[in-house]
Amino acid sequence: EIVAAIEAFFTGLLPAPDVHAALPLPPEAISLPHQPLLGRRALVTSGPTREAIDPVRYISNHSSGRQGHAIAAALARLGADVTLVSGPVSQLDPAGVRVVKVESADQMLSACQAALPVDVAICAAAVADWKLARLAGSKLKKSPGAPPPSLELVPNPDILATLSAAGNSRPRLVVGFAAETEEVVANAVAKRARKGCDWILANDVSPASGTFGGENNTIHLVTADGVEDWPTQSKDAVAARLAARIAQHLTAI
Amino acid sequence: EIVAAIEAFFTGLLPAPDVHAALPLPPEAISLPHQPLLGRRALVTSGPTREAIDPVRYISNHSSGRQGHAIAAALARLGADVTLVSGPVSQLDPAGVRVVKVESADQMLSACQAALPVDVAICAAAVADWKLARLAGSKLKKSPGAPPPSLELVPNPDILATLSAAGNSRPRLVVGFAAETEEVVANAVAKRARKGCDWILANDVSPASGTFGGENNTIHLVTADGVEDWPTQSKDAVAARLAARIAQHLTAI
Repeated sequence: EIVAAIEAFFTGLLPAPDVHAALPLPPEAISLPHQPLLGRRALVTSGPTREAIDPVRYISNHSSGRQGHAIAAALARLGADVTLVSGPVSQLDPAGVRVVKVESADQMLSACQAALPVDVAICAAAVADWKLARLAGSKLKKSPGAPPPSLELVPNPDILATLSAAGNSRPRLVVGFAAETEEVVANAVAKRARKGCDWILANDVSPASGTFGGENNTIHLVTADGVEDWPTQSKDAVAARLAARIAQHLTAI
Repeated sequence: EIVAAIEAFFTGLLPAPDVHAALPLPPEAISLPHQPLLGRRALVTSGPTREAIDPVRYISNHSSGRQGHAIAAALARLGADVTLVSGPVSQLDPAGVRVVKVESADQMLSACQAALPVDVAICAAAVADWKLARLAGSKLKKSPGAPPPSLELVPNPDILATLSAAGNSRPRLVVGFAAETEEVVANAVAKRARKGCDWILANDVSPASGTFGGENNTIHLVTADGVEDWPTQSKDAVAARLAARIAQHLTAI
């Protein structure tokens, strides 16, 4: 019904806004909603992943999902058809966004591949680099006198690199994040080349930065053209700026 | 102000309940609030712990803190002076309870020791058995071609055993939980002997049980006198039953 109303609005079936007031309305009040991404499909990943050790224990990270969820919401506000693939977070589902909830990196990759094709993919999730080599079927027991178990790790699938190399179904724009605690920009430039993605949004996630779980984010946008330093701003503002840049890029192609 | 009102009530400074109604009130409507734990000090641990791998990664478990928080609330309702030491959870702080928030097992032990002496300690937290042997000061990097890091673990302090052996400051009643995925009661009986605690509440936390993060719990109470099987009931009902049993035990000593 909402979709029908929006479609009807854009195809002129609904009456134009009522502007016969005594005073002319300010221009912004009578402008059309700015939805430059209408008809575009977007995929966003968000939150941490959880890699099971046994039925009760896992390895995870401090990602809150706030930035990824804000990006999904911002893209939807610009009219995009958004699929948000999210690890376990306490964020609310953004309005107007298709949300797929996953736990592990393997599940996240499968959900992303199921969402293709898309015009743009933004990998904002803090995907675990490694998972356990063997998942214990029952809870690991602490045996008196026995040494602790050693947790053997193996690499997780690389979702950003996989989407960047997806051949015929590669999104026209693939955007990754680089969460670093040192050498933030240098690591991000290297990561962009290594992953084969188009843009990297690099940010400092050291505890002193307050980024993980916090309200604000300080972004360095790394593209083929160089590095752009964004001011420290709210994660909502980062999301709005990124969504506008994506709209500009996709409509300029 | 509330404390003063309760104290005033118990010392007879407030008028007695108004009972000159036409019909006699049922007995329960004119009974005093039942606060058998007034003047008793209780310590409750709740939630998981998080053991840091590096500044962004950690090992944790699926404990929601629901059972531990419910126990703290139930003890406070019976009049106890309750300190709740909790790992990271999304539960609200229970009313009338002193809450100390911690991350790691080491921090939880310190907070528990700072809360002594108490009359009763209930260890409901799902404390990590192990922590990392070495905490990485900056984020572990995935190096192309290099093998994954191996996570060397060492035992965490045993909070239940430490409180059970606390000498002159040992709580009169020490209660532990045994979260098991198999041989639930047998493991709990062995755990009670090994830890030196008085009671163990054993429960099945296998994924099929739905206990971790769920509403209900099926408890087997293991004491020196044997094993008592409680029916499956809400975690609030488990907490109320346990609090009543604790009150009975402490006032019978």
